Amino acid sequence: MSKPKVVILGAGYAGLVTARQLTKKLSQEEAEIVLINKHNYHYESTWLHEVAAGTLTPNQARFMISDVVNPNRVRLIYDTVLEVNKDDQRVVLENSEVTYDYLVIALGFVTNTFGIKGMEENAFFIQDIESSRLIAEHIEYQFAKYSAGEITDDDELNIIVGGGGFTGIEFVGELVEEVPRLCKKYDIPRNKVRIINVEAAPSILPMFDKDLVSYAIQSLESRGVEFRMGAAISECTKEGFIVGEDKELIKGGTVVWTGGVTGNPVLGKSGFEIVKGKVNVDADLRVQGEENIFALGDCSWVMDKESGRPYPPTGQLATQEGVVAAENIKALINNEPLKDFIFSDKGTVASLGVTDGIGNIFQGTKIKGKSAAAMKKVVDDRTLFLVGGPKTVLKKGKFRPF
Amino acid sequence: MSKPKVVILGAGYAGLVTARQLTKKLSQEEAEIVLINKHNYHYESTWLHEVAAGTLTPNQARFMISDVVNPNRVRLIYDTVLEVNKDDQRVVLENSEVTYDYLVIALGFVTNTFGIKGMEENAFFIQDIESSRLIAEHIEYQFAKYSAGEITDDDELNIIVGGGGFTGIEFVGELVEEVPRLCKKYDIPRNKVRIINVEAAPSILPMFDKDLVSYAIQSLESRGVEFRMGAAISECTKEGFIVGEDKELIKGGTVVWTGGVTGNPVLGKSGFEIVKGKVNVDADLRVQGEENIFALGDCSWVMDKESGRPYPPTGQLATQEGVVAAENIKALINNEPLKDFIFSDKGTVASLGVTDGIGNIFQGTKIKGKSAAAMKKVVDDRTLFLVGGPKTVLKKGKFRPF
Repeated sequence: MSKPKVVILGAGYAGLVTARQLTKKLSQEEAEIVLINKHNYHYESTWLHEVAAGTLTPNQARFMISDVVNPNRVRLIYDTVLEVNKDDQRVVLENSEVTYDYLVIALGFVTNTFGIKGMEENAFFIQDIESSRLIAEHIEYQFAKYSAGEITDDDELNIIVGGGGFTGIEFVGELVEEVPRLCKKYDIPRNKVRIINVEAAPSILPMFDKDLVSYAIQSLESRGVEFRMGAAISECTKEGFIVGEDKELIKGGTVVWTGGVTGNPVLGKSGFEIVKGKVNVDADLRVQGEENIFALGDCSWVMDKESGRPYPPTGQLATQEGVVAAENIKALINNEPLKDFIFSDKGTVASLGVTDGIGNIFQGTKIKGKSAAAMKKVVDDRTLFLVGGPKTVLKKGKFRPF
Repeated sequence: MSKPKVVILGAGYAGLVTARQLTKKLSQEEAEIVLINKHNYHYESTWLHEVAAGTLTPNQARFMISDVVNPNRVRLIYDTVLEVNKDDQRVVLENSEVTYDYLVIALGFVTNTFGIKGMEENAFFIQDIESSRLIAEHIEYQFAKYSAGEITDDDELNIIVGGGGFTGIEFVGELVEEVPRLCKKYDIPRNKVRIINVEAAPSILPMFDKDLVSYAIQSLESRGVEFRMGAAISECTKEGFIVGEDKELIKGGTVVWTGGVTGNPVLGKSGFEIVKGKVNVDADLRVQGEENIFALGDCSWVMDKESGRPYPPTGQLATQEGVVAAENIKALINNEPLKDFIFSDKGTVASLGVTDGIGNIFQGTKIKGKSAAAMKKVVDDRTLFLVGGPKTVLKKGKFRPF
């Protein structure tokens, strides 16, 4: 009898942790493990706002998969997943096909524009390494063109950011660090450059309570961010966002949309039942109605029995899911009972640049300022440890002094 | 009786040396000295090809004028010169006016497109700090867009350079260093990026003899430069250069024109007689027919009595002219006879990247390879010493190991 074959799609937080855990839990003889990823590197998707702002180099936010997964234990395939064929237990890739006995779908998110007119065509997205660094390069190119007199309208220097969620706010927090540097480099007065955050809801960062949010707003405003809350975007043009009932145009030479994400479209193409862009999974993380398919991270909704709502999607959640998915795959192979996933909340911290932040930790303790900024780096390094081990923390960890 | 007032227009090689020499030759009581420049910094215009390629940061190629000229001895005005009014002995600036008793016009060059259709609109120029770094930023932005899938045509990665003179060749020499770095950074195979030098004449670098030129061509070709010699550009479009009788289109996402320079247009606007874009000066460097106006560097033609032709315009020439102009201004003030300028040729070295080059030194010795590359750095540091003194060499000098 041949070994069971576990195929993992995606080397993000969830997929990479699943692969690493499986190599620890199963011997070479017990299972064949295949990890399929578009690139030969993993990137920290929760750090992309820094790459997009230019405060972190792309290489600091990524590492080679083969550095953290033993290629002798896990077959690594670098290819793009097109579709899963459940009936044949087969995954169709751009350049080949792979069959599986057990499948883990951890293909991450894509940006969701909610069908806002012109957003797809005219806005940048913080979606992966390439799309994020393109933003940093675009911003710098605007500065270079302005200083060389190729563009003369001050609005071309404006950076407008749609979405006041985690990514949008952490992104403007990095911009207030980077813009003064660019201004100095290109001899442009700081007051020529506006950083505008546009959010349809009456406030930002819904996951934090009122006083942390006010703190964040004040901190960012004092460093030059303008907020336009309660401003729903009806259209994105080449010039900027059109907001509100009077169709006001907020102009900017760099237009970034961070207002929503959704699960990878491969899910829908493969015939899974999609609920708000993702699939629902059972408590054991298997796709509802499927015996041998797990869906993790931004591809699935996991119900929090306490609140009666799905857990909010974070890197922390994805990482923890990877551990349980690996345990349950081992259980399936050994015909043992599966365990339920329960999220252990280590807290949530949002950075507001290098030296400031807000957070909830230890289930109820609020922090802000430098201690939150320090805690954010601890959180980032902890995630890095889980996906990449201690060597990766040493190489890519955040120990920026302040 | 009031002190004579010497006004120097431009803080390039010629102007800055004139100003510095005057402070040494004349006491505070003997003359008032005014130096007018567009920016508060001097830049090494013979290094701009490195800024344009991205191998040198703009800050390495410039320094503050007030760091090398004592502002208590020289009145520094940072403004743009619009016109010289000879009859009133007055210079019109963008924001004010300045009268003079003695005038030094050292306003440098602007790019000359020779009226080639579309060149002004569609090509980048290596003209000053801003225009040069814009090229580096544009090249990198093309790579970022390509890697993010925003552009897909490989030709968009091509860098095409019009002009096989000093600047054009030294620029492609830097590009062969920089392009592999960008390819690595953006995960783009090196063979996707073409670097094409286009020259109307049958060969490149007319100032060097045949074997040095063949050496340069071979060296650059072996590192991936393509040469199109004997290819006259009839038009520059958004897509690239149109060359030859059959109107062949050479495509590139980055199009740079280095094919010609001319003296600052202020000369013509001010009513001086223009010969091929510059004014003729007498052997004492005064504009022909003018008693109290000097024109230096790329603004003037100085006749070489030996060859019967004007000296070729270089940074070295401009620097030496600055020394003689200062001496002659002192002579004028003291009613002493003026001296003739004679160029002392210290040799000419062209770099072909960091570790290669060709040159003529000691009036007849040909060098190539690493020794030429090393000599080039010596030449650059020597110029820097003349315009900025020893401290500037320590801060901005070229001591790159290889």
